[in-house]
Amino acid sequence: MFAPLQNDTFLRALRRQPTEHTPVWLMRQAGRYLPEYRATRATAGSFMGLATNTDYATEVTLQPLERYPLDAAILFSDILTVPDAMGLGLSFALGEGPKFAKVVRDEAAVAELAVPDMDKLRYVFDAVTSIRNALNGRVPLIGFSGSPWTLACYMVEGGGSDDYRRVKSLMYSRPDLMHRILAINADSVAAYLNAQIEAGAQAVMIFDSWGGVLADGAFQEFSLAYTRRVLAQLKREHDGAQIPRIVFTKGGGIWLDEIADLDTDGIGLDWTMDLGKARERVGHKVALQGNLDPNVLFASPEQIDAQACRVLDRFGAHPGHIFNLGHGISQFTPPESVTALVEAVHRHSRAMRMDASF
Amino acid sequence: MFAPLQNDTFLRALRRQPTEHTPVWLMRQAGRYLPEYRATRATAGSFMGLATNTDYATEVTLQPLERYPLDAAILFSDILTVPDAMGLGLSFALGEGPKFAKVVRDEAAVAELAVPDMDKLRYVFDAVTSIRNALNGRVPLIGFSGSPWTLACYMVEGGGSDDYRRVKSLMYSRPDLMHRILAINADSVAAYLNAQIEAGAQAVMIFDSWGGVLADGAFQEFSLAYTRRVLAQLKREHDGAQIPRIVFTKGGGIWLDEIADLDTDGIGLDWTMDLGKARERVGHKVALQGNLDPNVLFASPEQIDAQACRVLDRFGAHPGHIFNLGHGISQFTPPESVTALVEAVHRHSRAMRMDASF
Repeated sequence: MFAPLQNDTFLRALRRQPTEHTPVWLMRQAGRYLPEYRATRATAGSFMGLATNTDYATEVTLQPLERYPLDAAILFSDILTVPDAMGLGLSFALGEGPKFAKVVRDEAAVAELAVPDMDKLRYVFDAVTSIRNALNGRVPLIGFSGSPWTLACYMVEGGGSDDYRRVKSLMYSRPDLMHRILAINADSVAAYLNAQIEAGAQAVMIFDSWGGVLADGAFQEFSLAYTRRVLAQLKREHDGAQIPRIVFTKGGGIWLDEIADLDTDGIGLDWTMDLGKARERVGHKVALQGNLDPNVLFASPEQIDAQACRVLDRFGAHPGHIFNLGHGISQFTPPESVTALVEAVHRHSRAMRMDASF
Repeated sequence: MFAPLQNDTFLRALRRQPTEHTPVWLMRQAGRYLPEYRATRATAGSFMGLATNTDYATEVTLQPLERYPLDAAILFSDILTVPDAMGLGLSFALGEGPKFAKVVRDEAAVAELAVPDMDKLRYVFDAVTSIRNALNGRVPLIGFSGSPWTLACYMVEGGGSDDYRRVKSLMYSRPDLMHRILAINADSVAAYLNAQIEAGAQAVMIFDSWGGVLADGAFQEFSLAYTRRVLAQLKREHDGAQIPRIVFTKGGGIWLDEIADLDTDGIGLDWTMDLGKARERVGHKVALQGNLDPNVLFASPEQIDAQACRVLDRFGAHPGHIFNLGHGISQFTPPESVTALVEAVHRHSRAMRMDASF
């Protein structure tokens, strides 16, 4: 049994219910821009050392909440835990992106893929329960996973890429193999998120970080369809509580109408999309999460304030907005910038509600 | 006096006039995927050695036309010649992106910036005239430049970037300095493109390669406004011929309506935008250029054919389509793939016109 929730603005906003202020949390809010995070990571020795240790994962998840009055916590983990559990061997060299020891580029490698034993991801579910206990009802805990397509990008490329040449070559030349990878990924992600829900996650988010690199047509066939397959398998509720979902496709603004047709409660948007136009298009159907450019946090507190107000004003004084960045916070961000941002979002969104006599 | 044009399908398509087939050319068609290009570059010693030598620039511009029945040629050069002429010191290490010896990040550096003496870019204009002569009327020659914003990205970052942290930090914290840079860039680009037109360019294209990384609002203020400032200064005609313009904003599909309001004849689109929807939105107002994912060229000839037909079909049998990739061709592309692509575009677009009894 977990403690009752004291601040449910995030969950209410996801349900498009009125809130006193616009809830705010930041993608990668537990991360390298915080000196206390860097200290814990140094102790843990490596990123995976941090992510696989329940105590460390709990500690770093809560660090930003000690500094800032954020309205949600997100599990400290990585989007690539699932392919790691499939046996691909994930590692992070300091200052570099993720790397897989094994890549999936041919028929033989695809034939070996299977939905992993969820026991291999026990460390994630343990972390979820531990974090939920440590939060003690302060704010809701978000669980997450990479999308089937985004996982496939890393599994085929073997790491990050700037042209997605290998994964797209496979997709265009052997669509049958790509569909096979994506089906396995989708069923794995669904099992993974359901286990996070059972462990205590109060909302789940699917990061389609690389959906936006696909061509129109290919996006619908290779990314959106498999996000849909995940959503169809997710638990709707647990322990008497609804478990809302958020889908974030970086660069997905162009396909907003199609993404809004998914069985999701919220859609994450990057900074290229005007929130006012986005809201006009989706109406009350889904909540919108976003969408400040993380680089705004390199400006002065006054300028951060002005840009945050602009994002809030563009959405307007309707229910259904969760303030966030349009992408993960930069490791170079001055921590004081986040203080200014969270303060501005809470203050201005309260004032908007007054003005709108909401 | 130049020879009369034998194949004007590209220019007619830009004017939204009927053509017998859909004209096709490829961004970076003269480039590293061609062994003959690599041979010339090895002789020249460096990229800038190639670009600044009239004979080499002419030779490599014509290389793809010897292999493929392309409908346009594009000046072999780089988008960063203008900041180089401003004294920033452009270089390319083999296998790496561009680098500037000097960067523009503070008030003092901005104060030193000025529209460069066009004589420093004489090598570009000489190349234009030489290429135009060498083409001998086969196909039209396109001149080009980076957009003011895209040039500013490189000038502030000092090279490529994956987060645009420095240029956006300057933009958000010192918008006055950024506007000053952009105004100088716009006037420089206009002078540069006008000199290319005088030297023989029959159309000009502005590459806003990094416009798509901007937030909504910032895009309009820092990219679009300065592209407009360039267009307002461009010669409409030269030597009795109209000189059409194309604006390409990578990731700009989301702002298509606003881009289509520019005084431009054509808009380049990347592969994320459905050409059918794009055409519905812009109607007959502008021509559309694009938009195959360059990674399709790693698939089989049959699959390349199918994907090329899909792009043509999405646009439909209307005048005003110029077939292209949605981004520059990859250096790893098999040259035979381009043979298959150009053949497919010409064959299928002719057949479409028959079917539509156009």
